[in-house]
Amino acid sequence: MKFIVSQKEFLEGLQTVQRAVSNKNTLPILSGVLIKAEDTQLKLVATDLEIGIECYINAKIITKGELVLPASHLSSIVRELPSMDVEVSCNLETKSAEIICGNSRFNINGFPADDFPILPKLEEGVQLTICQPLFKEVIEQVKIATSTDETQPFLNGALLKITGNELIMASTNSYRLAHRMIQLENGIDGQVEVIIPNKTLDEMVRILGDDEDSSIRIQITDNQILFEIENIIIISRLIEGRFPNYEPVIPKNSNTFIRVNRKELLQAAKRVSLIAISNSNIIKATIDNGVTILESTNSEIGHAQEKLLVNMEGPGIEISFNSVYLMDGLKVINSDEVKLCFGGKLSPLILKPVDETNYIYVISPIRS
Amino acid sequence: MKFIVSQKEFLEGLQTVQRAVSNKNTLPILSGVLIKAEDTQLKLVATDLEIGIECYINAKIITKGELVLPASHLSSIVRELPSMDVEVSCNLETKSAEIICGNSRFNINGFPADDFPILPKLEEGVQLTICQPLFKEVIEQVKIATSTDETQPFLNGALLKITGNELIMASTNSYRLAHRMIQLENGIDGQVEVIIPNKTLDEMVRILGDDEDSSIRIQITDNQILFEIENIIIISRLIEGRFPNYEPVIPKNSNTFIRVNRKELLQAAKRVSLIAISNSNIIKATIDNGVTILESTNSEIGHAQEKLLVNMEGPGIEISFNSVYLMDGLKVINSDEVKLCFGGKLSPLILKPVDETNYIYVISPIRS
Repeated sequence: MKFIVSQKEFLEGLQTVQRAVSNKNTLPILSGVLIKAEDTQLKLVATDLEIGIECYINAKIITKGELVLPASHLSSIVRELPSMDVEVSCNLETKSAEIICGNSRFNINGFPADDFPILPKLEEGVQLTICQPLFKEVIEQVKIATSTDETQPFLNGALLKITGNELIMASTNSYRLAHRMIQLENGIDGQVEVIIPNKTLDEMVRILGDDEDSSIRIQITDNQILFEIENIIIISRLIEGRFPNYEPVIPKNSNTFIRVNRKELLQAAKRVSLIAISNSNIIKATIDNGVTILESTNSEIGHAQEKLLVNMEGPGIEISFNSVYLMDGLKVINSDEVKLCFGGKLSPLILKPVDETNYIYVISPIRS
Repeated sequence: MKFIVSQKEFLEGLQTVQRAVSNKNTLPILSGVLIKAEDTQLKLVATDLEIGIECYINAKIITKGELVLPASHLSSIVRELPSMDVEVSCNLETKSAEIICGNSRFNINGFPADDFPILPKLEEGVQLTICQPLFKEVIEQVKIATSTDETQPFLNGALLKITGNELIMASTNSYRLAHRMIQLENGIDGQVEVIIPNKTLDEMVRILGDDEDSSIRIQITDNQILFEIENIIIISRLIEGRFPNYEPVIPKNSNTFIRVNRKELLQAAKRVSLIAISNSNIIKATIDNGVTILESTNSEIGHAQEKLLVNMEGPGIEISFNSVYLMDGLKVINSDEVKLCFGGKLSPLILKPVDETNYIYVISPIRS
């Protein structure tokens, strides 16, 4: 196998797939990236058996073939090479590669391509297409509420539920819930409901771009999900189990409503949190007469208080909750103003963009 | 005590002194910063008893006084405050401070100022003045070769030796040596020779600016050194003991000389180092016929080779050394071209700026 590739494109490709490289040392070959020289392009593949990333890049292929090379060494070498063409010649018998670029010459040892796990080909299942930045926003808004508690694996990811033209993503860690709905231009027949793992959500946010004209193709089978974005394919296992019925958690009736500038509330919450950190992040909100007061106390450090003028409806209320949960929600909402809906001191509060009904973020109160 | 200060200046001052705050939890008050409201300005002081930093900032003083406040909490609060005037009122009886800024109000607990260690007043000793960016360059060039081996405390810093108008700084970890000389505009009577600790060198590099018109005042006594830069004073203990006689280490006779572009050599060394990392950073240089070849080998990973065209004098040579040592030296030299002087396979090599004699960096070879 022999090919010539630009240093920049080679590095970008390696960085794209490298995130799927296994950090565990169970199977040495999984620390590598499969490099396959096809007719007119180079295919790079990495997987930790849970998620697999494939990336296609332009290259001048001189001889076809495939070899696995150690991902971290290879990308640190390519990163330091001058921005010139890189010539890679692999000896498939000795499983080694010679990398020549300008006056630099590297020989690195690899693994036989035959031992590398093959990413499954998804030939069936549900297919749909979504605008890239929209799907990125949906994932960002939902990812925040996923759980990392390994005793409840079905919460270590986000629900993706598609019914006809309606797509819902939801997540919860039992103390908070994020729920986003969008209408698809081209829906699917029937319904599909799967749970996408946290790590895959993280990779998606990293890979998805902001180009409104670019879309992502999604293909879903019973136990795998595939995302195709331009020259990149991500294949992930799905989380087994049933996502809990979260509908009852979303409060139906609220009495007190406030509208407030999102950034101002976020900054106030950030400051009050400085004192709350060592007290399980508990802050107290007192809402009365068009004023919201956020407070936190720590007997050792001291006390913090923030005052905000808000547009208010309904009776006054006093409620305590985790300030980090509030800040996470405020960070992923894109509107200038947000609405907070309260049902009482011991009822979950709802945070949502003003005048929009497609995103709901629910935070459980803390008894204080 | 009560004062009004701009959020920006307060934060800058806190960040300046905070680096002297003790990380060890031996004496709780050393985690604090002393705030003293004087006639027309605010004095901030922090110390870990080895190094002390004082900083003066403008403030409107309403009532004079002094109090110690927890440094990390205070600066994290001030960092998050809006860029407005901050009003600080301290209750010297309860040892607490109220911080008001816009709609934010913090109460934090502190320590009595009386318990805070007093930084010594240096009223005697040698005094001199040096251009700020020049002194910064001197420290950066010498700092790299200091030792962190605690069994040889007199190497955990840099020698500062002033004789008349000549200032020398030098450091060594026994495997490499850095030596810089400058001529002072106004020298001193006689001679002074002290060892400045590593941590102090680090702080100096951080605080020293690049303004050619600005200078630093230095005052040296037997066991303390003081640096005064505009509104900042740094007082550091000196390392006790005698700095070794390093003169014999500097090779007097070299046979082989090369001149090479500094950046090209640095980039080549960086790439070859990628393979050398897991082999104690050993790289081999083969110099012959106007070509320098850098190489490193690791039986598991592979092999790296870099070729450089150099301007060469004298016989060919093959020598092995620590690539990190070479890179460190190349990073702190400011000339476009560097000169390397070799005395043989087992003799230290000298790295220096081309056509300059005031900086010498010596690297011991490794037997291979």
